[in-house]
Amino acid sequence: MAELVVVGSVALDSVKTPFGQVAEALGGSATYFSYAASFFTRVHVVAAVGQDFPKEHLALLEGRGVDIGAVQVKDGKKTFRWTGEYGFDLNEARTLDTQLNVFAEFTPVLSPAMCKAPFLFLANIDPELQLDVLRQMTQPRLVALDTMNFWIEGKREALCRVLARVDVLLINDAEARMLAREPNLIKAARAILDLGPRVVVIKRGEYGALMVADGRFFFAPAYPLESVFDPTGAGDTFAGGFMGYLAQRGLTDATSLRRAMVHGAVMASFTVEDFSLERLKRLDPAEIKRRYEVFQEMVHFDR
Amino acid sequence: MAELVVVGSVALDSVKTPFGQVAEALGGSATYFSYAASFFTRVHVVAAVGQDFPKEHLALLEGRGVDIGAVQVKDGKKTFRWTGEYGFDLNEARTLDTQLNVFAEFTPVLSPAMCKAPFLFLANIDPELQLDVLRQMTQPRLVALDTMNFWIEGKREALCRVLARVDVLLINDAEARMLAREPNLIKAARAILDLGPRVVVIKRGEYGALMVADGRFFFAPAYPLESVFDPTGAGDTFAGGFMGYLAQRGLTDATSLRRAMVHGAVMASFTVEDFSLERLKRLDPAEIKRRYEVFQEMVHFDR
Repeated sequence: MAELVVVGSVALDSVKTPFGQVAEALGGSATYFSYAASFFTRVHVVAAVGQDFPKEHLALLEGRGVDIGAVQVKDGKKTFRWTGEYGFDLNEARTLDTQLNVFAEFTPVLSPAMCKAPFLFLANIDPELQLDVLRQMTQPRLVALDTMNFWIEGKREALCRVLARVDVLLINDAEARMLAREPNLIKAARAILDLGPRVVVIKRGEYGALMVADGRFFFAPAYPLESVFDPTGAGDTFAGGFMGYLAQRGLTDATSLRRAMVHGAVMASFTVEDFSLERLKRLDPAEIKRRYEVFQEMVHFDR
Repeated sequence: MAELVVVGSVALDSVKTPFGQVAEALGGSATYFSYAASFFTRVHVVAAVGQDFPKEHLALLEGRGVDIGAVQVKDGKKTFRWTGEYGFDLNEARTLDTQLNVFAEFTPVLSPAMCKAPFLFLANIDPELQLDVLRQMTQPRLVALDTMNFWIEGKREALCRVLARVDVLLINDAEARMLAREPNLIKAARAILDLGPRVVVIKRGEYGALMVADGRFFFAPAYPLESVFDPTGAGDTFAGGFMGYLAQRGLTDATSLRRAMVHGAVMASFTVEDFSLERLKRLDPAEIKRRYEVFQEMVHFDR
């Protein structure tokens, strides 16, 4: 079992979907990622919250064995807040409000022990900060990165510099097309590999995820759910399952990457079944194993 | 190898995509279906064309061993014509013009031999005609049916009557939601099974296809293509590969249905690589085998 570090956001989300709503619920990329990954390995979170951040949220992560020693609690500051809503097409969120607050001046600082971690996930933050974190790492074996349209449009040059130095890019399909400036997703994937990563994972919401690694394609469907409550955090949960599994095994080979994809899809399938981290909070590890087996059954065919 | 009958349209299509255009090219559901299925088994086409229909098109099907004895050539009538275009989102066609012509008064008549065929595909035509064909069949082992929004909205009652009597419904995702009056695709699939079919296959274009059979889910991705020229006929080609494979093997069990799904996806992946039947016309059977193997590789993972 190898150590895994995540740098990203810890936030308070207000979300409305056709099935209900929550106000100021626990959210943020590093939150979903670390909670999901905690089922597989030891996770260290690097983030910042304001003085207003409810103590029980950090206690929740600690209860899962997540190291929150590098979560900076800033006096006199407020926590990052996101407000969004989804229509019946749950694939796309409409952002109603973003208050960066403490996140606007976030400077990730890793402890000496974290700098030696073999597995690192750079969640969706400013690529300049992602670069800064990478410089602090001494011997990462596998670095994965997420990003979004905001950075692709506004900080392409910095983003390309960090992409040249990471192993895996996890990105959604619209953003993959935008980054590659190519409407065909397969061409886009190849163009992204030319930017540096050895592996690209393209997340397609209810349509599953596609990986290109070492020139080979792998498809993982989404779990067939009869009720999707809130897709918020699905991508970060996917990343948490993906990286958590790899760190648990301490492996980065092609076979492990495929298993990691399915673990990502499995974990994401739980997150979307309720608001915030509610479903993950009542997740029994045996359920992960069962859903993994269902995935095998769902795609199996022979000659 | 079992006999396979298809009842549907033979048409002249004018299509424009971002990559080019064709005028009055060979098209129609029964055309794509029978050409694709001809790689697997003996196919009989039941359709109607006008006096203006180019002889070489029928010769093309005959050259593949397709029985065109039940293709009615109507004196003084014109062939069914469809004009449509696609934007960069190749998942959705915009119909510019439809001229039913001879198809408006089409009455399918099956020969006594055809009535005894064990495999039948009712392509997307008026559900009243689909019922009429079903009544002519004496001992079908597997009947599959396609339909579209036009019939779901305009002839729901007749459509439900025919659905109660078929084994497999092949349908696209938007139409599955419309038929089931349910936005969640998984719930929609279950609702459709309640209407009668044992198996539902939901086609999702570039996202692949989903099958629910005997309560179990199966996902087939779409083949990762770097250039999709024209998606016209992809669904009917899928159906041709699906039914062609089952008829070739003379099987309808769960394992064969899964292999049939992948053969459908393989055949459709060729059709979209060029306009009309151009890619299928230069298809080497060895390419089908190779692409089937790539599909296996694309979804394989283990514990």
